[in-house]
Amino acid sequence: MAGMWQCQVVTSASIAGAVRQGSLRELNLAVVLRRIAAADHPPSRAGLAAGTGLTRATVSAVVDDLIAGRLVAEAEPPPRTGAGRPARGLVLAADGPAGLGLEVNVDYLAACVVDLTGTVRHHLVRRADLRPVSPADALARLAALAAEARAAAVRDGLTLAGAALAVPGLVGDGGLVRLAPNLGWRDVDVPALLAGHPLAEPVDGVPPLVVDNEANLAALGELHAGPPGSRSFLHVSGEIGIGAGIVLDGALYRGARGWSGEIGHFPVQPQGRPCRCGGQGCLEQYAGQEAILAAAGLPGAELPADTAATRLADLAGAGDPTTLAALADAGTALGVAVAGVVNLLDLDTVVLGGGYAPLAPWLCPPVVAEISRRVLTAAWSPVTVRPAALGAQSAAVGGATSVVRRIVDHPVGWLARTP
Amino acid sequence: MAGMWQCQVVTSASIAGAVRQGSLRELNLAVVLRRIAAADHPPSRAGLAAGTGLTRATVSAVVDDLIAGRLVAEAEPPPRTGAGRPARGLVLAADGPAGLGLEVNVDYLAACVVDLTGTVRHHLVRRADLRPVSPADALARLAALAAEARAAAVRDGLTLAGAALAVPGLVGDGGLVRLAPNLGWRDVDVPALLAGHPLAEPVDGVPPLVVDNEANLAALGELHAGPPGSRSFLHVSGEIGIGAGIVLDGALYRGARGWSGEIGHFPVQPQGRPCRCGGQGCLEQYAGQEAILAAAGLPGAELPADTAATRLADLAGAGDPTTLAALADAGTALGVAVAGVVNLLDLDTVVLGGGYAPLAPWLCPPVVAEISRRVLTAAWSPVTVRPAALGAQSAAVGGATSVVRRIVDHPVGWLARTP
Repeated sequence: MAGMWQCQVVTSASIAGAVRQGSLRELNLAVVLRRIAAADHPPSRAGLAAGTGLTRATVSAVVDDLIAGRLVAEAEPPPRTGAGRPARGLVLAADGPAGLGLEVNVDYLAACVVDLTGTVRHHLVRRADLRPVSPADALARLAALAAEARAAAVRDGLTLAGAALAVPGLVGDGGLVRLAPNLGWRDVDVPALLAGHPLAEPVDGVPPLVVDNEANLAALGELHAGPPGSRSFLHVSGEIGIGAGIVLDGALYRGARGWSGEIGHFPVQPQGRPCRCGGQGCLEQYAGQEAILAAAGLPGAELPADTAATRLADLAGAGDPTTLAALADAGTALGVAVAGVVNLLDLDTVVLGGGYAPLAPWLCPPVVAEISRRVLTAAWSPVTVRPAALGAQSAAVGGATSVVRRIVDHPVGWLARTP
Repeated sequence: MAGMWQCQVVTSASIAGAVRQGSLRELNLAVVLRRIAAADHPPSRAGLAAGTGLTRATVSAVVDDLIAGRLVAEAEPPPRTGAGRPARGLVLAADGPAGLGLEVNVDYLAACVVDLTGTVRHHLVRRADLRPVSPADALARLAALAAEARAAAVRDGLTLAGAALAVPGLVGDGGLVRLAPNLGWRDVDVPALLAGHPLAEPVDGVPPLVVDNEANLAALGELHAGPPGSRSFLHVSGEIGIGAGIVLDGALYRGARGWSGEIGHFPVQPQGRPCRCGGQGCLEQYAGQEAILAAAGLPGAELPADTAATRLADLAGAGDPTTLAALADAGTALGVAVAGVVNLLDLDTVVLGGGYAPLAPWLCPPVVAEISRRVLTAAWSPVTVRPAALGAQSAAVGGATSVVRRIVDHPVGWLARTP
């Protein structure tokens, strides 16, 4: 990123003619759009010129392109307070491109639409136990839900620019789901099963659907929706499975093959309960939704994650001792794993997301206690443990947000598609 | 990096005049020097011009600067095989700047000199149990060893360009050692204790001594000395303490405050043995040198790490069943922790370094077994577990190597100091 800014400075003035016009335009579009996206107050054209070092004429031309492409709009002018015409500020357009976020999880399907400003415009959820359903049927139901969301977006005048699908498992190249143990999926070729559906039809050679791990997309959602300042954090999503997204310096860390974040199989009791993965004593067996429900003496391991979390939160809030003990034990197991991660990665923030978010009042204290006990550096630098800003289904919101963020980072691709 | 190369291309030709001469020279020096460092065969000036896109004249001027600054030398010409004068290839200079690597560990002090080609020219080790010694005394002894190494380097015609000191603990800003639990150090201000010694005297405003965690420096050493291709790996150093260095895509991952890699306190038995850190069941209590020696029924927990490792390797090689069982148990504990890290970070290579390197024949199988059992993705993508290329005291070599690598990456700082 620093390199890109450096290039921009080098190439913006007298030497522009020597640079390929195409790449200069790309650079300037991205620089100006990112400034508008990051601004606290809608900047004027003059303010953008001052802030970027570009000439006023260049900024005006770039802004005209961005407005024509429905990426930027002029904000309503502030009320007149004196003589002269107040400058109109520039904001991201709320009626241009939008991202479609989709999720297949163990007990629900979700689809959501997020516009360029990051606002969730539609969010549809269908409850269903998808474990007995074939991958083809599950994806057919998802495609129907996606069509509903698309229709709602079109009614709002939005254009879907792409889609991201969150699955609770390991995703390989080309959208192949290698393994989603809690769904019972293995080597499921998502694009092939969606063949013929608009989701799978490339637009200008770009496949509109990206398949990703749900914990990764939830962490991306938290990065963009969470409080400012959290640029490096561990995001732990608690559902029937437990996944983590690792954000380092504002970027998702994916690992050598994109399979990072499998915290659910962190060995918290190496000789303990057998796990579906073939291992033993994995965190999931102590702090996954089914383990917490069983310890709380609640039937219905098949409850949707947010319903289960709400029921547990209600009981804990009413002081039910069995539920409180179950949450304390789950929090301790989670804290053991999180402390191991913090010792390893030296992160200063841990975010509890997904089904953990509503349970944070009861999970945070034992997690913090284990961190204080086990993290060497906790004495000098406390670790913040907080609930996620996005609640359940954060992965769908994160997926949709990742689509629109890509447009802000690389607007040329979108503009090339605009007639 | 991509950005920098991109800049270089944009600025190298007709538009060079518009760019600050200083920064262009910096860029070209670094580009050419890195090409020479990375080449399999000594490149000629013409080859460098073709490979970088710089003009032949620019390359010649840059190479002249690098030769004058003792960073580059002309290789002996190959034997004449036909008519014409063979082009002389360019190599990194073996008689220019060198790095000084230092280490204070629980049971030894080390100093080593590495030249620009990465060759270890001197390596001095002094055995001593440093636990009963005050930090000031330990550093005074280290300074004396450093002076010996410096004298040896000067006799070789080398110039020490900087030093890196490895300590088995958490290092804060400005070389303050926050905590080195196995040494008994807490808030030790290394530069202050070395005041008056050449190591602590800034040269041209640059402090010549960098203090870093030993596992970090050992991992850096492995990055530069290990087999090509390993760009992302976990390097685990087993001594009395256990530390890890995490290398992601060719760069050391340091964490939010530089305190990453504390794998020794990974909870492998959360309700198990108490640890010096205040936690319970930490890896160090099951796979640290003292734990292995005790399990093998060997006296002398105070043995130097490489002596202890050699003795254990001898006994295991002779088939001693108690030692074999002790190593199998330690390897299993290590494997539980490593599997947790691989699940979290999706790394494809694990390097056993420090005191673990000579024990690798016995530690690798149980580590691999735990990875196969516990790592979700092991079925698609096996994880390589191998001994480190550098043996014990790899941290001192890694520290010295990091000094010369900085010169290759940023030669201008060194050239500015050359008369």
